[in-house]
Amino acid sequence: MDVKEALRARRAVNFFDPGRPVSRETLDRLVELAALAPSGFNLQPWSLILVTSPERKAALRKLAWDQPKITDAPAVFIVLADREAWREGHPGFERNFKEMAASGAMGEDRRGWFANACKSLYGQSIEHSQAFACKNAGFFAMSLMLAATELGLDSHPMDGFDQDGVRREFAVPESCWAILLLAVGYFDRTKTLAPPKWRKTAGEIVLREE
Amino acid sequence: MDVKEALRARRAVNFFDPGRPVSRETLDRLVELAALAPSGFNLQPWSLILVTSPERKAALRKLAWDQPKITDAPAVFIVLADREAWREGHPGFERNFKEMAASGAMGEDRRGWFANACKSLYGQSIEHSQAFACKNAGFFAMSLMLAATELGLDSHPMDGFDQDGVRREFAVPESCWAILLLAVGYFDRTKTLAPPKWRKTAGEIVLREE
Repeated sequence: MDVKEALRARRAVNFFDPGRPVSRETLDRLVELAALAPSGFNLQPWSLILVTSPERKAALRKLAWDQPKITDAPAVFIVLADREAWREGHPGFERNFKEMAASGAMGEDRRGWFANACKSLYGQSIEHSQAFACKNAGFFAMSLMLAATELGLDSHPMDGFDQDGVRREFAVPESCWAILLLAVGYFDRTKTLAPPKWRKTAGEIVLREE
Repeated sequence: MDVKEALRARRAVNFFDPGRPVSRETLDRLVELAALAPSGFNLQPWSLILVTSPERKAALRKLAWDQPKITDAPAVFIVLADREAWREGHPGFERNFKEMAASGAMGEDRRGWFANACKSLYGQSIEHSQAFACKNAGFFAMSLMLAATELGLDSHPMDGFDQDGVRREFAVPESCWAILLLAVGYFDRTKTLAPPKWRKTAGEIVLREE
């Protein structure tokens, strides 16, 4: 399925068939495809908590406006954005620097430059670090949704949940923000999907050309 | 080109061919494809400033670490995320509510519920509103990059720029945050593209399954 078709075919599916599971292998394949998304300095400040057991899905549903799709879908990802992955000493930063040094993309002598560049861009305020984390995890989440479409899966991104409640109940790492819950499974074909919602036109999106 | 191929083929291209323009029609087509990205309550808190003239690209380059790709690429988008598009009275909120009412997706009697839901999720702090804006604009930006790949275009997302400087020089609306600069054009095939960078595995991304 090409990108155009996937962009059109991807719908936030409100009803999942609770009788159709998704294997962990398929979910891992989905995650590895989405992992090809780009990120600032390739820091990849994203991770997932995968919720599949009936008990834990029920616990998550309680924290998410009691949305039935959480317990109907075979899998729900809590998509996390790490606000600290740019900071020298953080495992994300250190792993990235090690890999870049190993590949020859950046020498050990550039560590100071790299750490300062990250700090100047992402460390000025919570506004900056939140933007860093959430936009990059947004790239990843969008890739997850499109890759799911291509793999024949349906998905539903959800914002309606209690950030602090999910943080506590699912032991979200302190430096992370849960940007969304993403239910993944198969559309319940006995239900009817609402027509696609309106979208802004290119003329509305492009404020001006300079 | 299918989604898998596009995810693999999309590369942050460091060198653009300054002799190959991209028409405004092609850019508009790209933007309309990316506009199919989902967003929280379909609020679509994204917009673009398109920079194509040599003079304005030079001004942007000065604010972006003097990166040559800004002046080499025929087009650079400043991708904006609106931290206020969820607020009742904001044109984004009002437009969305009007469209939902017109389509029958939400009745006028639900305005209060909708406004409160948005406020409770996005209005608690700058952390919440920044997350709202940047993740959704991240969905849009990722869609832009994949749609560009499908249309045969190359792109390069850039974080290295002066947020306040760009805000002033390009009259970014007060409520918006510039999440990235996206250069769009054609790879300069006389140059060599570095090999793809490392990525986290599914096993590293999925912290645990519950």
